[in-house]
Amino acid sequence: MTWAEDLASLKERARDIQDLGHAQAVLAWDQETLMPPKAGPSRGRVLGVLSRLAHERIADQKIASLLASVESSGKLKPGSDDAAFIRLVRRYHEHASRVPSELVAEIAEHDSRSQQAWVQARPANDFAAVEPYLAKSVELRRRVSEYFPEHAHPLDTHIDAADEGMSVAVLRTLFRQLRDELVPLVQAVTAKPAPDDGFLSSKFPKAKQLAFSHKVLARLGYDFEGGRLDESAHPFSITLGAGDKRITTRVRSDESDVLYSLMSTIHEFGHSTYEQNIKPEYDGTPMFTGASAGVHESQSRLWENIVGRSRGFWTFWYPRLQRAFSKALKEVDLESFLRAINKVETSLIRTEADELTYNLHIIIRFDLECELMEGKLAVKDLPEAWGARYQSDLGRRAADDRDGVMQDVHWYGGYWGVFQSYTLGNILSAQFYSTALQQQPELAAQLAAAKTSGLHRWMKKNIYQHGSKFTPTELVQRVTGSPLTIAPYIAYLREKYGALYGL
Amino acid sequence: MTWAEDLASLKERARDIQDLGHAQAVLAWDQETLMPPKAGPSRGRVLGVLSRLAHERIADQKIASLLASVESSGKLKPGSDDAAFIRLVRRYHEHASRVPSELVAEIAEHDSRSQQAWVQARPANDFAAVEPYLAKSVELRRRVSEYFPEHAHPLDTHIDAADEGMSVAVLRTLFRQLRDELVPLVQAVTAKPAPDDGFLSSKFPKAKQLAFSHKVLARLGYDFEGGRLDESAHPFSITLGAGDKRITTRVRSDESDVLYSLMSTIHEFGHSTYEQNIKPEYDGTPMFTGASAGVHESQSRLWENIVGRSRGFWTFWYPRLQRAFSKALKEVDLESFLRAINKVETSLIRTEADELTYNLHIIIRFDLECELMEGKLAVKDLPEAWGARYQSDLGRRAADDRDGVMQDVHWYGGYWGVFQSYTLGNILSAQFYSTALQQQPELAAQLAAAKTSGLHRWMKKNIYQHGSKFTPTELVQRVTGSPLTIAPYIAYLREKYGALYGL
Repeated sequence: MTWAEDLASLKERARDIQDLGHAQAVLAWDQETLMPPKAGPSRGRVLGVLSRLAHERIADQKIASLLASVESSGKLKPGSDDAAFIRLVRRYHEHASRVPSELVAEIAEHDSRSQQAWVQARPANDFAAVEPYLAKSVELRRRVSEYFPEHAHPLDTHIDAADEGMSVAVLRTLFRQLRDELVPLVQAVTAKPAPDDGFLSSKFPKAKQLAFSHKVLARLGYDFEGGRLDESAHPFSITLGAGDKRITTRVRSDESDVLYSLMSTIHEFGHSTYEQNIKPEYDGTPMFTGASAGVHESQSRLWENIVGRSRGFWTFWYPRLQRAFSKALKEVDLESFLRAINKVETSLIRTEADELTYNLHIIIRFDLECELMEGKLAVKDLPEAWGARYQSDLGRRAADDRDGVMQDVHWYGGYWGVFQSYTLGNILSAQFYSTALQQQPELAAQLAAAKTSGLHRWMKKNIYQHGSKFTPTELVQRVTGSPLTIAPYIAYLREKYGALYGL
Repeated sequence: MTWAEDLASLKERARDIQDLGHAQAVLAWDQETLMPPKAGPSRGRVLGVLSRLAHERIADQKIASLLASVESSGKLKPGSDDAAFIRLVRRYHEHASRVPSELVAEIAEHDSRSQQAWVQARPANDFAAVEPYLAKSVELRRRVSEYFPEHAHPLDTHIDAADEGMSVAVLRTLFRQLRDELVPLVQAVTAKPAPDDGFLSSKFPKAKQLAFSHKVLARLGYDFEGGRLDESAHPFSITLGAGDKRITTRVRSDESDVLYSLMSTIHEFGHSTYEQNIKPEYDGTPMFTGASAGVHESQSRLWENIVGRSRGFWTFWYPRLQRAFSKALKEVDLESFLRAINKVETSLIRTEADELTYNLHIIIRFDLECELMEGKLAVKDLPEAWGARYQSDLGRRAADDRDGVMQDVHWYGGYWGVFQSYTLGNILSAQFYSTALQQQPELAAQLAAAKTSGLHRWMKKNIYQHGSKFTPTELVQRVTGSPLTIAPYIAYLREKYGALYGL
């Protein structure tokens, strides 16, 4: 066969693999939103079959020989879509084929049991019950890393799977710089009197909350002809196919907190609008998704925090919010509202943290995850190390492990090497945003009137349409003209919180 | 390998095939209920991939050698679940493997184009536009039949796929008997003054209609923990997995016709409750569905017509319906309501036909389908043959082909050899029902008070739990002690309509 025929064969295989992934996505979406309770075990099995079929196809040795033929042909034009296609198929094939399938199966089974153990142990505050699972999880990840000798640190393999090109070495430097900036800024802000935000927590009827979210989504540019907003226990965004990128939200069962559902909806909008605006011709290829977890998160954070908590956004929307919930909000002016939704407060729980302190939670986890993986920190010593870091970085220490080291599902459910993506997203959101404003200064006035379509067009042109054609490193350089840097993020935080807190 | 190992291997393969089918069902359900408009092409492709993977697996030659090993072992106990399993795997393997995959693909492509042509041609009343598609469809079905030389008639292969063991020869005799009974009965009933049913067609708010349907479903015994009721353009019931059997309904867009949505919901309840009550241990095997299309339809018809249009059912529910829609119904008494919902009227459209005339529509289609397949009737002569039969059997002739030979999607969409299932369902509904009343005479008093749980238990014990362990022929004999017979159905119709119309 010619190299062109081999390329065509790879494309056909890639399309099937993507389609199997989209089938899994439909089943997963349904599972989280509408599936009747008794369907659980059967659905799990069907998802397992689809997952196995997809894995067999991407790990197939025939892929390796087709790749070798195309790569060695010398016919791929650098920078072309085909070159990106081959790069990504190589990447996914290596991830899927190097680890023996017995180890993959062992990990899947262990993670499932570990997560169940955590679900039971967390409410009981019983770290001892999960300790052996955690130790085994670390060992299993170390064993996976051994199949990737090109990585210097055992966590690198897992980090690279989520954020291509990132490594412990790079992140350590980056996060140390960030922490050095954040800690004094948080101290300065929290030394000031805290704004009142009690009015955010009265009762806001669910139907009205969802109707308001629909209006905000429509004005932000969410394509309801190619998506949906539904409810689920945990909000998420997901791609079910071309023309089918959905988001979910959650309204508190007591209908309290007017922003709880709305801000998560805007967050998921960022993820979903990214996927909705990838070039349609990438459908069927591994380019048909975001460039990395961190770049994806940059869009959810951009729309949620930089846009969604800004003065311009709420100058337009707050009078409308007041009208929708006049009983709770009619006496509250815009200034008080803006201070409340940007309140900074050191806390123990990551998911409840504000924009400014959030990254400190992440950096603690990243540092401890590295030490666990290196064997420098024993799992039995983890709770004490956790408490010590919270004390030093956030000035607080959890009373128990439930609200300490056991608060997040990630390590217990098998998600290793992913915490960094949240902070990479924050950093990149500001780097992309400041580039957009430099290149198109007129955006500032538009955003001050909550007109976001110009910013959205810029993101589409520079980021969304390319899917994962470029590596995250290439993309950041290409879009901003510089490598990843924390400077725009720090500048954004200083300016915003300086103004709000009168620093 | 031993025969037991071969059997185990077949079971593993059958489970995967079922699971792929359930994955397709989730995607199909979503497509018909919630999917955003732009997702169509992508969803079609994903469904195609799953369908291909399932077909490859059931047609696999390895299945043939495993079947041969187990069948020739002499170890299968007659009447055992394993024997039924092997019988069904053999049946599906033969259906999938004998027809060359090129012909399967040609049919799929042709049917898709033919249906699109019909969608365009029907509103334009343009039979000439679909004529060549229809001729090709007949030819393709005849080619498929050639791979099943054991069948005497070219339609038998297609009939047997839906209703195992049925054939043109058997159905011709049966349907002739039925027609001879129905024609004079319809004439006698329609000679009487027609009851007034205008009050059924005022305005009934959609939310109230759906709430009423939920109440009726709950009392009938629908398991909402293992199912759902949603809306779709055409009502259907579908199995998405163990513990996940869903139904849909449709409310007219002008909210007219209080029974339009409710009666279709009860119909789909019959299908879905059958599936919900199959032995859970059959999950993963081809026994995990109803025995045949006709037996399945016996349950939708039983609950919709025999129960759902009965005096006992409405003695309980009518006062509740009156309260829910008091404006439209408060002046209408139970007797008038019962006459209205059982009004008999010859008509041109099958889907609008009443219980009594419905089968005459089916018998016309069955006879013409046989003649087309035999080559006795040319496609170009079909509209005239259709009109002549409607004139002779129902005393009416459609003014155009739109409401005549082009009214049903079946022949244009590739559904051949399936019309008989509707009438088989009607016949069997009465045969099963009369057996239940003979064996448990106390059911009559229960049903007169709309207490249906006794009847449901009888159906579960005798029919539902077995799934498709028994062939339809075996099942009917086993349950009723006799072969399929129209006698109970004719007796039921005579008694019901004799009383309603004072014959």
